[in-house]
Parts: sequence; structure tokens; C-alpha cells
Amino acid sequence: MAVTIKDIAERVGVSVTTISRVLNNRGYLSDKLKKKVQGAMEELNYQPNELARSLSRKKSNVIGLIVPDISHPFFGQLTKHIEYYAYKHGYKLMLCNSLLNKKKEKEYIELLRASQVDGIIMGSHTMKVEDYMAIKLPLVTLDRRISDAIPYVSSDNYKGGALATKLLIRKRCRKIAYLSGSLQLNLLAKQRHDAFMEQVGRQSVDYVVRQTDLNGFKYKEYEALVRELFDEHPDIDGVFASSDLLALQVVRESRRRGKSIPGDLKVIGYDGIQNGGAEELTTIEQPIQEMGKLAVLRLLQQMAGEETPLETILPVRLLERGTT
Amino acid sequence: MAVTIKDIAERVGVSVTTISRVLNNRGYLSDKLKKKVQGAMEELNYQPNELARSLSRKKSNVIGLIVPDISHPFFGQLTKHIEYYAYKHGYKLMLCNSLLNKKKEKEYIELLRASQVDGIIMGSHTMKVEDYMAIKLPLVTLDRRISDAIPYVSSDNYKGGALATKLLIRKRCRKIAYLSGSLQLNLLAKQRHDAFMEQVGRQSVDYVVRQTDLNGFKYKEYEALVRELFDEHPDIDGVFASSDLLALQVVRESRRRGKSIPGDLKVIGYDGIQNGGAEELTTIEQPIQEMGKLAVLRLLQQMAGEETPLETILPVRLLERGTT
Repeated sequence: MAVTIKDIAERVGVSVTTISRVLNNRGYLSDKLKKKVQGAMEELNYQPNELARSLSRKKSNVIGLIVPDISHPFFGQLTKHIEYYAYKHGYKLMLCNSLLNKKKEKEYIELLRASQVDGIIMGSHTMKVEDYMAIKLPLVTLDRRISDAIPYVSSDNYKGGALATKLLIRKRCRKIAYLSGSLQLNLLAKQRHDAFMEQVGRQSVDYVVRQTDLNGFKYKEYEALVRELFDEHPDIDGVFASSDLLALQVVRESRRRGKSIPGDLKVIGYDGIQNGGAEELTTIEQPIQEMGKLAVLRLLQQMAGEETPLETILPVRLLERGTT
Repeated sequence: MAVTIKDIAERVGVSVTTISRVLNNRGYLSDKLKKKVQGAMEELNYQPNELARSLSRKKSNVIGLIVPDISHPFFGQLTKHIEYYAYKHGYKLMLCNSLLNKKKEKEYIELLRASQVDGIIMGSHTMKVEDYMAIKLPLVTLDRRISDAIPYVSSDNYKGGALATKLLIRKRCRKIAYLSGSLQLNLLAKQRHDAFMEQVGRQSVDYVVRQTDLNGFKYKEYEALVRELFDEHPDIDGVFASSDLLALQVVRESRRRGKSIPGDLKVIGYDGIQNGGAEELTTIEQPIQEMGKLAVLRLLQQMAGEETPLETILPVRLLERGTT
């Protein structure tokens, strides 16, 4: 029986898709992989099927990207960078907006699988660990460590939380609020909260913690959260918000109440969204471009059957501006 | 020779893809179309090929969406709504970020065609009319009228420009600046400028017009634009900016110069981006959700071979807030 691509794949220990890419010189290919495939082809005396190859060549390289909310500036920017690097390597992007809906996330993964995407980048995390483990496709997650088998890319959340809290303490805040998305989801962003708690504990600073509901990203919820905070704790003199959007709501509400910033209240956000608008918002900048670039790289490395680092944690940066 | 799907398609006067969808009951199908196809099948005595149908059934419904910059809040929100309605009708989204790069836009359209997408929504406009006419796929454009053959969806730019300018005049501005993206591109957004000119002419109000370069969406450019404007025309007392992002830069720069808003300077933006941040920005709200919904609907109607209205112009709304 004639030797097929499947036999080559088995011999080399990678997927059929990967062999196909090598034969068609498509996408990210390491020299090591190319040598292995060449070697296997010679050993097995493989005669390529030109028709199959030309059909294969028509196959479009697609990566699936699932985000919770594309209209959130952080995800808008992240998607921009992921699209850029994916395109650079010859891959197109299939975008799914999960809106934190578990059913939609699951359905979308099925659709992506049926569409024969080469891999998936997960920026949305509603499913259980077992569900992610069951996805038989190259996978990279953002901001969440699911298992020892699925690589993830993140920025240094703990450091970011520490930098932000220390700054407020250094600026002599006596009662600091930490505002975040839900702390129940097992996301790496929770480490910002852990760092906050460590710092306020160490310095014996008074503090308050408030979280939005599980269905984060609803801007009206942010408004309500901030109002309640100020109603219940009018003596707060520092706020660390876990996103710039949340921080901007704090600035807005403070103005309404006649509190001056940074005079009466110091505010620090998180993300470092470029178009922060009219505010010179002090914030912790996430390296969004690098995160996008590395998410794509880790996925390509997996697709190429290469050893891929489990964790990629990128440094954050404190941007001290006008609100502290 | 056996009757094929192609024969049915010719008889009905639609594409093979459309017939395939009817046979597989996939996507948006009008009763009128279904009846036509049924009738043609009976007339021609068509015997469906089950293998071909099952292969066809595995085909994923995909719509291509090309935007200039997904990180721009307007396009982030638009994409969110397009994705939502596409998904609702069983279509997945392939996202392209053109960054206003003509070569990339052209390449992407080729890739989408090779991927056999069912249609394309164009939100990015760098190519010439002939190039768009040459795309042999269902097509809908946003904010640009390309020809009498390609449906477009827009909001009422002229009305929006008039509402904004009239408001500033009503608030007794004596020297008004209009700030916009490039006025060279033949976009419907240019009508905001036309309305502005009409109003300032009518009321004999002093005015200045400034435009960013062709490569809009670069936030540093906005900063420079606004600074130059205030340096050259410190007596400006009203600004109509053609995007909220631009308006926020104006607010920022005004603060830096110690100008109070709205006291010394009245500012109105455009778009009505939800997360305008800390500002109570007066703006002209575009019905972004409706635009997304109708862009998808128009594309589906085309795919179904139905008569599709050439122009869909949705109403805008003045949101009077704290900056005027």
C-alpha cells in the first residue's frame, strides 16, 4: 500500500496538518521540523499525491480567537495585535465574542473544530478545566492557567497589584479600595487582589474590597458599584481599580461629588489602554502587543509540534500620571 | 446527463451556494426562495447527491468582516454587534484588521474568497471602486457608497453634522472648529463636514477646519492636531470633533491650557461610544447596534438572492451632556 501523509505524520510524531504544511511550505516551520519530515519521507520512500497537495494548498490557515467582549478596549487592542501577528504568519482569524456565555463558548469551540481551524486562542474563560482539556486542538489561554498541558500567556498580575498598592500607600492613602471584576473566576488577574491584600496587611492600611458580578463588562454595573462604594465609605482616599474603565468611572463619580483628584482621592487603574481619553490616568500598563504576539507564537509552536513553554509571564509597567 | 445543482441554480437565477443552502436548510432562507427552488427541482426532476450534500453540510458558514482598526471603540462595538447577529443566523466571523493598508485589504479579500466565505462586510475603504466591483461575492459596505450595485449601511451623517453645528451656534459659539479624519476619502462621513459648512455659512459664524492625515486612527496624531489648533487659533470657543476620541483629546488639551469646559470652550464629539470614560461628553450618537444588525441582514438578503435595498440610512441622536 502506498505511503501516505498519515504514515509520515506517525513517523515524525506530529499531526497530518503539520506534514501538509511542511509539504506546502506554509505557515511557521522550524528547521528541526523540516529536517525530521524530510528524513521520514526518505525512510518511507514517500511519493506525494499532487492532486491531494494542491487541494491541501487551497486550505486556508485559520486560528480561532475567543474573547469575552470585543468592545472592551483591552480586548480590542489585544485582538488587533493577535490579528497582526497571525496574518504575518499566514493565518486568518475567526473571532468569537463569548459575552461570558458558557453555552456560546462551547458551541463556538465545536464550530471552530468543524471548520478545521489549526488552533484556538482562548481569552474567555467560562468552562471547566475538563472541558478545555477535551479540546483536541492546539490551544493557548490568556490570563488563565488551566492545566500543565495547556500553555498560557499572561502579564505579571501579582507585580502589577503590588506596584499599584505600594504607590497609593507611598502617596499617604489611609483607606484604600480595591475594585475588581469577579474574584470567583480562577483567573490570574486575581493575583492583583492577592498582592493588594499583602501590601495593605503589611502596612496596616485600612481597606475595602468590592467586586462586580460574574457578568463583568457591563458599564452600568461599574457606575452602580462606584456609587455604592462612595456612599458606604465616603472616607476613602485611594482607589485601585482593576481596569482603566473602572478607574474612569471612579474619576467621573468623584467629580460629580466634588472630590478633587488627586487632592482628595488618588486613583490608579489597570491595563494602560491607549485611548484613555481625556484623563491622565495613572495606571499599570499591560504589554498588550507583546501578549498578542506571544499568544500567536505559542500557538504556532504547538502546531509545529515543538516544545512550548507552559507559562509566559510578561512584565508590567507603572505609568504615573495625573490621578495620583 | 443527470441534473445538477448548477442546473437548478440557473433555472432559479441564484448562485449554486444558495441552492446548496436551501437543500441543507442552512442560513437565512425566505419562503419565496424555498418555493422557487422546490419548483425548479420538480420541473427538472432533480435527484440530490447525498455524498455531495453531506460534504456540503460540513461546510461552515462564514462571513468576512474587514475593519480599519478593531482597537478603535467604534469598530470594537460595531464588530460586537455584527458578530452577534451573524452568529444568531448561524454564521461565523472572519475578522480582518486592514489598518487602512490597501495591500492588506486586497490580500485579505483574496484570502476570504479562497476560504469560500459566503459574503463580506466592508468597513474599511482603501481600494478603488473598480476593485470593489470586481469582487464576485455578496458584499455590503459601511459608511461608503461605492456603486448602484453594492448595498451600504450608514447613519445619517448629514443630519449629525447639522445637529452638532447648530448646537454650538445655539450655545453662542463665535468661532467653531471642525476636526475630522481625512476629507479626501470618499466616505459618507464627509457629509458631516458638508453640513457644518452649510450651517456656519448660514449663520455667518467664524470657523476653522482641520483634518488628520489619511492614516487616521493614530492617537498621537490627534494630540498634535489639537495642539496646533489651539496654538494657531486660541480664540476658538467651540469644537465639533468627528469622533469621540478626537473630542476627548480636545478636552484633555483644554484642561492642560486651563480652559474650562463648557465655560471657555464647548465641545461636541461623534459616535456615542459607550465607554466615553470619565467625561460627560456631548456627542452625536450613531445607532451602532442597528448598523451591525442591518449590515448582517443586508448581506443575508443578498446571499439569499433577494432584492436588497441599495441604501440603509439610520437616524442619529444628539446626546447633550456636560461639555456644551
